[in-house]
Amino acid sequence: MTRQELINQIKEKKTFLCVGLDTDIKKIPEHLLGEEDPIFAFNKAIIDATAPYCVAYKPNLAFYESMGVKGWISFEKTIAYLNEKYPNHFIIADAKRGDIGNTSAMYARTFFEEIKLDSLTVAPYMGEDSVSPFLQYEGKWVILLALTSNKGSHDFQLTEDKDGERLFEKVLRKSQEWGNKDNMMYVVGATQGKMFEDIRKIVPDHFLLVPGIGAQGGSLEDVCRYGMNKDCGLIVNSSRAIIYADKTENFARVAGEEAKKVACQMAELLRPIL
Amino acid sequence: MTRQELINQIKEKKTFLCVGLDTDIKKIPEHLLGEEDPIFAFNKAIIDATAPYCVAYKPNLAFYESMGVKGWISFEKTIAYLNEKYPNHFIIADAKRGDIGNTSAMYARTFFEEIKLDSLTVAPYMGEDSVSPFLQYEGKWVILLALTSNKGSHDFQLTEDKDGERLFEKVLRKSQEWGNKDNMMYVVGATQGKMFEDIRKIVPDHFLLVPGIGAQGGSLEDVCRYGMNKDCGLIVNSSRAIIYADKTENFARVAGEEAKKVACQMAELLRPIL
Repeated sequence: MTRQELINQIKEKKTFLCVGLDTDIKKIPEHLLGEEDPIFAFNKAIIDATAPYCVAYKPNLAFYESMGVKGWISFEKTIAYLNEKYPNHFIIADAKRGDIGNTSAMYARTFFEEIKLDSLTVAPYMGEDSVSPFLQYEGKWVILLALTSNKGSHDFQLTEDKDGERLFEKVLRKSQEWGNKDNMMYVVGATQGKMFEDIRKIVPDHFLLVPGIGAQGGSLEDVCRYGMNKDCGLIVNSSRAIIYADKTENFARVAGEEAKKVACQMAELLRPIL
Repeated sequence: MTRQELINQIKEKKTFLCVGLDTDIKKIPEHLLGEEDPIFAFNKAIIDATAPYCVAYKPNLAFYESMGVKGWISFEKTIAYLNEKYPNHFIIADAKRGDIGNTSAMYARTFFEEIKLDSLTVAPYMGEDSVSPFLQYEGKWVILLALTSNKGSHDFQLTEDKDGERLFEKVLRKSQEWGNKDNMMYVVGATQGKMFEDIRKIVPDHFLLVPGIGAQGGSLEDVCRYGMNKDCGLIVNSSRAIIYADKTENFARVAGEEAKKVACQMAELLRPIL
């Protein structure tokens, strides 16, 4: 999906919500456990119920890998379902990969050519040759970790160098030598509040993928106040607060209602730029 | 496996070689492609041929994931085979994972409880809560990326902070608040030469996992000169130079011979501490 197509989707649907498919067999409604593939059955129902209210889906690979071979089958079925039935939704694999060049190239082939995702989260620690192989695919995206939503983000990401540049700022600046606003986004946690201002000084036009509203406590209003640009420039993710909003047979309907609530807030917040 | 058990293995077998099982369907001998599971057939033959000459195996997960569901099956079969037939070999999943706490906890369960690996490589960018969940398992290890073997290691890992501390040094120092020499190792590329001296100032007793000899050009002698400690403290990995040394029906025998050559060099290099 191109940048312009993504912007069009956001403006048409008046939402920049991403639904996080962090599907955990221990948390899905009990009545699904009798299904042949409970994880896929859950995802399919959640997707059908939330699709009108979001522009993106983000399965976190850890949740699928934790189930071994079965999990990979559920993951691949979920992506195939999205590609077939909802081709206008942007698909993010939250994988946080990053390895030496020839290994990253292998990951890129897997995720972009075989599984047909739009984008992948990548960790920057290993530098350029761990990131560049993902940038060779037309219409595909790297979403680089910059300033994450967790407590541990303070351990290294905020370290200032001799010139006062913090590590996440260096990641933002340096990575622009490798990619651009048409093939690179950045992960910035919703819990980072005013830091979005500093980030927008370095990447005014790039899209930011923002986890951390809902269960992790970030504020959607703050994210928009400090992080939105004229194209929106935000994809805001919510996982647990939507997909586990209800654990009965009504789970999908309730998830849809929760997604709709967030989308309504987002429509308001988008007004100034529409 | 405990630290002492690992040291005993190294001293008894006079080798600190790790064989990297970076198994690529495009590079294995053609005659294996008719097997039901060519990747596992290759791994099994390589393992049987090299086991006397190494103390560890390191499958890089990217190579298995790139084959989707089939790849995961081959990976799990390989680990099960190692655990059953070679319980004294240390098993490293080169996964370079690292995510927010609850997700890292999920990875830890998968890799340590279900697949029964000894250790996992982890990327440090997200800080403490992305690493700590892996440290809760008795006899299991985190191998944290510190100074990697690739060109991109210069992009961020060498960045000096205000006090002149480089990022990889901060990773080494800070992570000692989370783990210790009994449950944490560090990845340091063989291509880093004299930098091992600086690393040993911060982590004199920890084991280092050293990729980058062979195809990537690092020197085993330099690694030992600057990085070995009284317990050896090194696990040196070679992948391509061993497992793809021959592409005929003799591939396993030749791989065994290559591993033996490296092990002979290692026995010499170990002499001063035995």
